[in-house]
Amino acid sequence: MPVILRPEHAPSLRALIGQIPESKALVSEVVSGAVHSDQTLVQGIGPLASACAVEMSFIVSAKFDQALAQTQACAVIVPPTLAIEQGRDDLPPYAQVICDQPYLLYALLARWFDEKRQPPRITGVHASAFVDDTAQIAASATVGAHAVIGARTVIEEDVYIHPNVVIGSDCHIGRGTVVYPNATFYDHVRIGMRGIIHAGVVLGADGFGFAPNPMLAKGAWGKIAQLGGVVIGDDVEIGANTTVDRGALENTEIGDGVKLDNQIMIGHNCKIGDHTAMAACVGVAGSTTIGARCIIGGAAMFSGHITIADDVQISGGTAITSDITSAGRLTGVLPAAPHAQWQRNAAVMGQLGELRKRLRQLERKLPEIS
Amino acid sequence: MPVILRPEHAPSLRALIGQIPESKALVSEVVSGAVHSDQTLVQGIGPLASACAVEMSFIVSAKFDQALAQTQACAVIVPPTLAIEQGRDDLPPYAQVICDQPYLLYALLARWFDEKRQPPRITGVHASAFVDDTAQIAASATVGAHAVIGARTVIEEDVYIHPNVVIGSDCHIGRGTVVYPNATFYDHVRIGMRGIIHAGVVLGADGFGFAPNPMLAKGAWGKIAQLGGVVIGDDVEIGANTTVDRGALENTEIGDGVKLDNQIMIGHNCKIGDHTAMAACVGVAGSTTIGARCIIGGAAMFSGHITIADDVQISGGTAITSDITSAGRLTGVLPAAPHAQWQRNAAVMGQLGELRKRLRQLERKLPEIS
Amino acid sequence: MPVILRPEHAPSLRALIGQIPESKALVSEVVSGAVHSDQTLVQGIGPLASACAVEMSFIVSAKFDQALAQTQACAVIVPPTLAIEQGRDDLPPYAQVICDQPYLLYALLARWFDEKRQPPRITGVHASAFVDDTAQIAASATVGAHAVIGARTVIEEDVYIHPNVVIGSDCHIGRGTVVYPNATFYDHVRIGMRGIIHAGVVLGADGFGFAPNPMLAKGAWGKIAQLGGVVIGDDVEIGANTTVDRGALENTEIGDGVKLDNQIMIGHNCKIGDHTAMAACVGVAGSTTIGARCIIGGAAMFSGHITIADDVQISGGTAITSDITSAGRLTGVLPAAPHAQWQRNAAVMGQLGELRKRLRQLERKLPEIS
Repeated sequence: MPVILRPEHAPSLRALIGQIPESKALVSEVVSGAVHSDQTLVQGIGPLASACAVEMSFIVSAKFDQALAQTQACAVIVPPTLAIEQGRDDLPPYAQVICDQPYLLYALLARWFDEKRQPPRITGVHASAFVDDTAQIAASATVGAHAVIGARTVIEEDVYIHPNVVIGSDCHIGRGTVVYPNATFYDHVRIGMRGIIHAGVVLGADGFGFAPNPMLAKGAWGKIAQLGGVVIGDDVEIGANTTVDRGALENTEIGDGVKLDNQIMIGHNCKIGDHTAMAACVGVAGSTTIGARCIIGGAAMFSGHITIADDVQISGGTAITSDITSAGRLTGVLPAAPHAQWQRNAAVMGQLGELRKRLRQLERKLPEIS
Repeated sequence: MPVILRPEHAPSLRALIGQIPESKALVSEVVSGAVHSDQTLVQGIGPLASACAVEMSFIVSAKFDQALAQTQACAVIVPPTLAIEQGRDDLPPYAQVICDQPYLLYALLARWFDEKRQPPRITGVHASAFVDDTAQIAASATVGAHAVIGARTVIEEDVYIHPNVVIGSDCHIGRGTVVYPNATFYDHVRIGMRGIIHAGVVLGADGFGFAPNPMLAKGAWGKIAQLGGVVIGDDVEIGANTTVDRGALENTEIGDGVKLDNQIMIGHNCKIGDHTAMAACVGVAGSTTIGARCIIGGAAMFSGHITIADDVQISGGTAITSDITSAGRLTGVLPAAPHAQWQRNAAVMGQLGELRKRLRQLERKLPEIS
Repeated sequence: MPVILRPEHAPSLRALIGQIPESKALVSEVVSGAVHSDQTLVQGIGPLASACAVEMSFIVSAKFDQALAQTQACAVIVPPTLAIEQGRDDLPPYAQVICDQPYLLYALLARWFDEKRQPPRITGVHASAFVDDTAQIAASATVGAHAVIGARTVIEEDVYIHPNVVIGSDCHIGRGTVVYPNATFYDHVRIGMRGIIHAGVVLGADGFGFAPNPMLAKGAWGKIAQLGGVVIGDDVEIGANTTVDRGALENTEIGDGVKLDNQIMIGHNCKIGDHTAMAACVGVAGSTTIGARCIIGGAAMFSGHITIADDVQISGGTAITSDITSAGRLTGVLPAAPHAQWQRNAAVMGQLGELRKRLRQLERKLPEIS
C-alpha cells in the first residue's frame, strides 16, 4: 500500500481530526503516545498489521489487540474499552484517537484521504466527446474523452462522465453522479443524484422477452419489443459489469440507496427496494420484486415473478424460487466436502424420497413389536 | 411508464390494427366500448393495472379479470372467452380487440410502437469512427462515433454498429444486424442476418486453454493459442456482457435463432443448437454441445465436453455434469430454508452415505424379527 | 475451420518442425507417409476428425485411434506407442511426427501458426488516442484508436493497448502485456510482464465496502472509500469481462502465472497465489486468500475472509464457506435429476435433520428387541 499523500500535503493528526465535521460528536479525546504526538503528520491510513509509521490505523474489537500491540502506525483510532489513558506510564508509541465508533471514523477519514488524492476534476466536454446538439450538459459537469451523449439527454451539475462512456437518448443523470469508463446507458434510462456507476455497467439493454413463433420455424422465438425504461433512485452504487435490463412495458426500478456489487444481473420489470444491498454475481430474473433493506449474499439467484419482503437476508449461493413474505435469513447451499466423500453422499441425494419411504416402513413395523 | 407517441403521431385503434399485417388472421372483431370507440387515439401500450387512458392493454387469461374490470386502458386485446359481445348493455368502457392469441398481437403491437419511437437511423460512417481501408461497409450501414472496424471485415446492408464498438479483422456482420455500444468482436468472428448484440458483449476472446508447463515453474501453465473463430447464425440475440470464446482449433458455433440473455459464458469449441434459449448467468464450459430448442434456466452450469440432446429443459441454478441423451426437464437445486433449519439439515447433507448405511442395517435386522 | 496460411506462406512439414526450437528435444523422428512426405506443405493445424489435407493434426491417446485411421490430415504428431515404423508396408497416408509429448508440440505449433497469422503490430500512439502529457509510453508500445491513458501511467516496451481501452492514472503496464478492446483500468493498477487482459475486463473498480449509516436513513449504507490498488504479477491472463476490485486499504493481489477465465469476480483485498487457474464465472468475495497452484472449477464461489491452502482443487459450482487448510479436491454440487424425481427428493432435503432423528429413534428401539 503506497502512502497516499506527499509529506508536504499531510496534515497533523489533530488538524486531520478537525477536518472531519462529524469528529466532534465521535471523538472523545486525542492522546499523544510515547513516540507520536497529536502533531504527528499523517500521510495515509492502513491496517494495523501493515500500516507504516506515516500512516494511522484503527481497531474495532479486542480480537485484534495482538496486532495493536505490534502496530507501526503513528496513530490508532481506538474504542474507549481499548484505550490506555493519558498520563499512564505504559503509553503506547502511537497516538490514540478515542472514539465510540472507530469504524465510522475510519470510513470518514478514508473518504477524506480519497478526496485529497483525487486530482481536481476538469469540467466541460472533452474535445473528442460526441454530444448530440439537443443534449443538455450542465456547466459544472465533466464529459470525458470519446464519450457519447444522445439526443435530449440531460446531464446535471457536477456529473462526471468518464472516457468512452456511451449514454443514449432521453436519459437523465442526476446531480453529482459519476459514470466510470466503458459503461453504457441505452435510451430512456434515468438515475438520481450522487450515483456511482462503475466501468462496464450496462443499463437498459432489452429485457429477455420472447414468444414462441412456430410460424417462423419449429421452436423459433419472436422478440417482444421492450418498451419500458430503467429508473434508478438517489445514492445508488452499481458495480463493474453489472447489467440492469429495461422493462417490457413498465420501468425496471432501483430504489434509493441501493448498493449493487459487480456482475449482478437485474432482469426486466424488477423492482429493488430502498437500501437493499447485493454482493457480486447475484442474478434476479424478470418481474421479481425485492423489498427494502434486504441483504443478498454473492451468487444468490432469484426466480422471476416472485416477491421478497423487506428486511430479508439471503445467504450467498442460495436459490430463491418462491415468494418470501416476512423478514429473516434464508439459506440453501450444499456444503463442500472432500470429493470422494461427496461422491458417496451424492449417490444418496437422488434417492432421498425413497430413503424416507423406507424409513416410514420401518417405523410402521416397529410399533407393532415394541 | 411514459406515453410513447405524441398525440399528433398516435393512430386510431382501428388504424393501428390495420397497420399490423398479421392482424387480419388474428383479430376477429373490434368492439367499441361505452367510453372509447374504435376511433380512440392510441399513444402507447401498457399493463392492465397501470395503463392510462391513452394506452391500450391486453389480457391473456381469466386470472387477470380483476385487473380487466378496473383497467383505465382505452382498448384491450381480449380472447373470445373473455369478450363482452357488441350490443350488450354492460359494455365495458374500453374498446375490445377480440383475438385468438392476445399475447402474439401484443408482441406485434409492441414492435410497431418500438419502431415508431426510434429516431431514423443515420446511415454512413461517423467522422470519428476508425475503419480500416480494406474493410467493406455497405452503403446503408451505420458505423457510430468512435467505433473501430478492422482489416478485411465486411459489414453488410442495414447493419447498425453503435458508438464505441470494436470489430476486429476478418469479421463478417450479416444484413440488418445491430451491435450495441462497447461490444467487442475479436478477429475472425462471423454473425448472420438480423442479429442483436447487446452492449458489453465480447465475441471471440481466447478460449481458456493451457497445458501444464513445469519447465517454466512449478505449477506453471503454458498457453495454447486459440486458432478457431466464432460463427453465429441468423436471428441470434446475445444479451449484455455475455461472452462467447473463440475455438481452439475449430469454431465455436451458435445456431440460428439462438437467444442468449445477459452475462452468459459460452466456452471455446461449444456448439449451441438452433433456437435454444438461455436465461441470464448461464455458464457452458468448453467443447460442450447443446442441442436445438433447449430452454436453459438462469445460472445453470454445464461441464465441458458433454453433449445435451435436442429439446432439453434445464431448471435455473442446475449443474449439468454429464451427457443428456433425451428430451425432458432436469433440475438440481437445493431449496432455500430459514437459516437455522438449513444449518440442521446441512449437518446431515455430508453424512447421507452413512445415513443410508444405517438404514440398511435396520432393514436387515427387522425382517428377522417381524 | 479456415486454413490459416496461404499456400505461398506455408512451410514444409520438416521446415515447420525445424522452426520450433523445443522440437529438437521433443521429436524423435519424422516419418514420411504413403501419400504425404516430410516435404508436404502445412497450411494449418486441425483436429483429427476434421483436419483437411493441407492441415496437420495430433493424437494424444489410443482412445482416438479410430479418428487417426480416418484422418485426412497430411501429417500427425503421434506418441511412440502409436507410431507405425518407417519401412513398414502399411504406412499410413499421413506423415508421422513421433514425439513423446504430442500435446506440448501441438501447443508450440499452434503458437507458431497464431503468430504467423497475426498482422505486424503497428507501434506508436494512434492519432485518435488521448494520452495524458505526463504518461510514459515506450517507443515499441502500441496505443490503439480512441484509447485513453491517464496521468503518470507507464506503458513499457512492446505493450499492446487495443482500441477503446481506458487506462487510469498512476498505472504501470509491464513489458509485452496485451490489453484487448474496451477493457478498463482504474487508477493505481499495476500489471507485470507478458500479461493478457481480455476485452471488457475491469481492474480496480471500488471494492464493495459500506458501513451502516442509520443517520442518513433507516437501513442506509455509507460508502467506505477504497484506497488500495490492484497489483498483478507476470504472465497473468484475465478473461473477458472479468472484474478485479481495488483493495480497501491494501492492494488486491494476483500472483505470477495466474490464469483467470471469463466473467470471474475477485473482491477487494483478495490475494490469489501464483499459477492458480480459475475457470469461468467464479466469484471470490472480499479479503479471501487463495493459495498457489489451485485449480478452481467454473462457477465455484468463495465466501469472504477465508484462506485456501496451496494446491487445492475445487469442483465447478461448489461453494466454499470456510478455510481449507490442506491440498485436495473439494466438491459440493447437487446432482441434476429428472424434474419430477427432483421434486420428490427436494421435499426431503428440508427435513434431513428430522430424518436423522427418526433414524436414531429406530436405532435406539432396535437394540432392545434384537
